[in-house]
Amino acid sequence: MFRNMIENVKNTTPLVHCITNYVTVNDCANILLACGGSPIMADEPAEVEEITSICGGLAINIGTLNRQTITSMFMAGKKSNEVGHPVILDPVGAGASALRTNTALDLMKEVKFTVLRGNISEIKTLAYGSGTTKGVDADELDAVSEKNLEISVEFAKNFSKETGAVIAITGAIDIVADKEKAYVIRNGHPMMAKITGSGCMLTAMIGAYLTANPDHPLEATAAAVTAMGLCGEKAYNKLQEANSGNSSYRNYLIDEIFKLDGEELNRGARYDMW
Amino acid sequence: MFRNMIENVKNTTPLVHCITNYVTVNDCANILLACGGSPIMADEPAEVEEITSICGGLAINIGTLNRQTITSMFMAGKKSNEVGHPVILDPVGAGASALRTNTALDLMKEVKFTVLRGNISEIKTLAYGSGTTKGVDADELDAVSEKNLEISVEFAKNFSKETGAVIAITGAIDIVADKEKAYVIRNGHPMMAKITGSGCMLTAMIGAYLTANPDHPLEATAAAVTAMGLCGEKAYNKLQEANSGNSSYRNYLIDEIFKLDGEELNRGARYDMW
Amino acid sequence: MFRNMIENVKNTTPLVHCITNYVTVNDCANILLACGGSPIMADEPAEVEEITSICGGLAINIGTLNRQTITSMFMAGKKSNEVGHPVILDPVGAGASALRTNTALDLMKEVKFTVLRGNISEIKTLAYGSGTTKGVDADELDAVSEKNLEISVEFAKNFSKETGAVIAITGAIDIVADKEKAYVIRNGHPMMAKITGSGCMLTAMIGAYLTANPDHPLEATAAAVTAMGLCGEKAYNKLQEANSGNSSYRNYLIDEIFKLDGEELNRGARYDMW
Repeated sequence: MFRNMIENVKNTTPLVHCITNYVTVNDCANILLACGGSPIMADEPAEVEEITSICGGLAINIGTLNRQTITSMFMAGKKSNEVGHPVILDPVGAGASALRTNTALDLMKEVKFTVLRGNISEIKTLAYGSGTTKGVDADELDAVSEKNLEISVEFAKNFSKETGAVIAITGAIDIVADKEKAYVIRNGHPMMAKITGSGCMLTAMIGAYLTANPDHPLEATAAAVTAMGLCGEKAYNKLQEANSGNSSYRNYLIDEIFKLDGEELNRGARYDMW
Repeated sequence: MFRNMIENVKNTTPLVHCITNYVTVNDCANILLACGGSPIMADEPAEVEEITSICGGLAINIGTLNRQTITSMFMAGKKSNEVGHPVILDPVGAGASALRTNTALDLMKEVKFTVLRGNISEIKTLAYGSGTTKGVDADELDAVSEKNLEISVEFAKNFSKETGAVIAITGAIDIVADKEKAYVIRNGHPMMAKITGSGCMLTAMIGAYLTANPDHPLEATAAAVTAMGLCGEKAYNKLQEANSGNSSYRNYLIDEIFKLDGEELNRGARYDMW
Repeated sequence: MFRNMIENVKNTTPLVHCITNYVTVNDCANILLACGGSPIMADEPAEVEEITSICGGLAINIGTLNRQTITSMFMAGKKSNEVGHPVILDPVGAGASALRTNTALDLMKEVKFTVLRGNISEIKTLAYGSGTTKGVDADELDAVSEKNLEISVEFAKNFSKETGAVIAITGAIDIVADKEKAYVIRNGHPMMAKITGSGCMLTAMIGAYLTANPDHPLEATAAAVTAMGLCGEKAYNKLQEANSGNSSYRNYLIDEIFKLDGEELNRGARYDMW
């Protein structure tokens, strides 16, 4: 199944409009190209509705939000809903400031999201309205583990039921859930937390997978999360061979997404259905 | 001749003011350093005139334009004209939104550009006032090919005559034309389209070549386009050796520009005069 | 002593709030992760006080300042003083425009900085109120050399006495001084000037070192400067082995910071006390 998801991306070159932060925007653009999509970044209110209309999907990331870009997020999100495009929200740092928490919550009121993707602290902030986020990283107490896996999956399913969005909680163990089914994904590598933007890149890439697989948001999201984790493992092997560090790791990770095909994704995927 | 162009860059360290997008700005700065120039990025209206005055040339790229930076583009462009600096425009995504199209067209009315550089869809948008740009990439129907080469060269020469600017249309085949002569350049590699910013980087680098060769805008632009294409080929060879992907390719491309010298450029250049 | 400084960073994961430029922001985030810290970038006035409060330190870099981010710099700087966090200023391009010079000088009036770090032209601009900065690089006439070393060290100590901040002047020879003591550091490599952001990255990293070593600002700053220089040397060795250029060098530099430990730092450090 994941094989179809990735091949649909590669065969259709989905154009994804990103309103995202200026920290990892270059990596987001390059990973969209790597996976077979095409990026366009635009955040000026005067053009975002037009830009989002010519694209196939929209990815909103609040990593370095400001007054101008917040306005654009609402405009583009609503326009995407209007024209029937998938929209994904990455609530970077929700819980770390009132502005981030409130912007994410308000966006959820006014825009129907196809997917919400974040770390567990960010997603809990969206669900409960306040959080314990430590900066832009998940609080360790919140982290999904074997111990709290059942309750975490249940939380994800319930939050999907409440919001209508696929919920993607990423960390050492990833959960991708709709109201009925959940993928519990065990691909990935701790090194992914040692670069900036592994979450942002995943969000952008899910944007491409959703756009290329409009009728399968759950599977498309799970495929993208699995692809990212698998390539994180492969990039780590390369890092060890080359005796490199985190900056090269970022390049290897994008490189591996570039090289990944459907057969390898199917073969390397490690997940259970819950 | 190209040898002189590149050596003048390396010998004079031209300082180029860039008002550019936040997606590829780091790559633009690093390629300016790689080719022998020096970058300064500044887009606040309160300082752009002063910054552009202390530089030798100006590169304007509308990739993530917003109200503030649009104001700065006009101010810096006019000031550059006033002090006699070369100015290059990269109309990223012209045709993809009215804001981009109109900003580019208005800039052309108020600023005298030394060079206009874009893909064929963007340049056609500048010439005809509306376009078929698909996002930030050229429309396939527009692409310059052996079939439409003669008419494309004619178009470039005419548009140069009309605007007074050197016209650089880049793609699988590159055309660099003034009203009388055109370089048809066949260096380059399709992999260059698999990274974000190969066009933006070229624009920044042309800025350095123009600044270092003020009396030869046509040759300087052709030399920079050729250098980029040649290094795109060399970077691809390195990619294959290393079994890498697009993120490493971006690094290799900049690396090759860093290592390129005049002799190698002359030897590797593949172009005809039309 | 440097060993303690670096180990305190690795053991405490200092969270550093960066208000910085969009050119090198990704490299700043990755080097913070590389050295053992954690970055958060935020520059919207509506959230910077809250963000800075949850962090341990603040790094202000005026590289692409604009009206919005200038407001945020003042707000975050004052808040950091209020809550007792270390604050470092990188006056990128001070002397190149009145806006940059005045913003830096005004920040110094309203915010008590723990460290001021820049090239010699920028620091002279802060000290004398006007400068000869050529763009964002130091003027060659100003450069610290064996010839003017004694007078340069004296200048740094006096400026530290005047401001209460540790003064870090970086270049071919680095000086890190408080009013009484100065480290004269001879690590580093000329290749560091061939990438954008080696100064910005150092500033961000000093932010982490200060946060992890609050009672030793002079030693913490000297340790970070030395670490950067040493890794610049190691990265250059890697560049030569791999026959690479400046873009790969940037990656190697961050990689080496990632791999550096306290023992290696102590062993590789080359400095005198003045």
